[in-house]
Amino acid sequence: MDHLIEKKLSSTEVFKGRLLHAYRDVVSLPDGSQATREYVVHPGAVMVVPLLEDASGSTRVVLERQFRYPVGRVMVEFPAGKLDAGESCFACAQRELREETGFTARQWAHAGVLHPLIAYSTEFIDIWFARGLQMGPRNLDEGELLDVFTATPDELLDGCRQGLVTDGKTLTAVLWLQNVLSGNWSLDWHDAA
Amino acid sequence: MDHLIEKKLSSTEVFKGRLLHAYRDVVSLPDGSQATREYVVHPGAVMVVPLLEDASGSTRVVLERQFRYPVGRVMVEFPAGKLDAGESCFACAQRELREETGFTARQWAHAGVLHPLIAYSTEFIDIWFARGLQMGPRNLDEGELLDVFTATPDELLDGCRQGLVTDGKTLTAVLWLQNVLSGNWSLDWHDAA
Repeated sequence: MDHLIEKKLSSTEVFKGRLLHAYRDVVSLPDGSQATREYVVHPGAVMVVPLLEDASGSTRVVLERQFRYPVGRVMVEFPAGKLDAGESCFACAQRELREETGFTARQWAHAGVLHPLIAYSTEFIDIWFARGLQMGPRNLDEGELLDVFTATPDELLDGCRQGLVTDGKTLTAVLWLQNVLSGNWSLDWHDAA
Repeated sequence: MDHLIEKKLSSTEVFKGRLLHAYRDVVSLPDGSQATREYVVHPGAVMVVPLLEDASGSTRVVLERQFRYPVGRVMVEFPAGKLDAGESCFACAQRELREETGFTARQWAHAGVLHPLIAYSTEFIDIWFARGLQMGPRNLDEGELLDVFTATPDELLDGCRQGLVTDGKTLTAVLWLQNVLSGNWSLDWHDAA
């Protein structure tokens, strides 16, 4: 892969806002020429796919509706949030699920990771599944407003096909969900404690 | 949904670089309080899922390997690129496929759209499928270095499960690909001309 790799020559902080933090680096390209790369630095995030067994034993998923200002619309999403400083991905997954939905989970499984925007962000999103859900109180961040609801996997898949679900991380979660539920892909579940 | 919606009170350009362009807006929340929102503005992009029939009649997909500086690694991706000013998504899909891979396609189908990073970018990515591919010359942008290769859908799915494919837009394309190839989701194909 050496013929593709770019090397950092210098790095400059070009913007530090309340949320966004951006750098401009000068890099050397494999052919020896130079280029600049601008990108947002991000601490990383987690997303949780919470599986709820209903009274009949069939599976529902827990989802959120939240207004996302940059895209100007209410989006359907799986619970997700940014890592706190020094926080592990698993601790963050447990915290975000509890804070945003009120649920705690008896069992967890790590699925994978996605990079949402590789052209100009360092962000990764670690993907977790949760089951054995128990309801408790929610604890939203200041200014965080969202609705929690549940759907069957088929309803969620229909929403993806029809364009009602367009959040990239959630669409990636649906790829995992579909293959896990069909038995194509297996998860390694462990207890929360 | 009115209980979720935020309204713009003011908007300030806070960074204009060579690639990144960021704003900070003051918004009113549904409860009447105020908050700030920082985000990157983006013209939008397209992604193409190119289907190649091999000699035996089975399907392969055309993929790229490209070093992505913000995440510091070589990523497996479907061909994609940013809209030029005034360009339609379909024209962009045709152009990016031709420039990056050398292929032109006899037939096209629009699948859907994804929003890669709704927390801090306005970007959308329009998703297209292409088939009836014919090879011609590539025409990469200045400083754009990438390898083109093909894989079977099963190889691509395995790569997703194993964590070799972590690009969010590509994982979303695989959700579409899997459901299109299984016959779950149908596409409306039309000729390129």
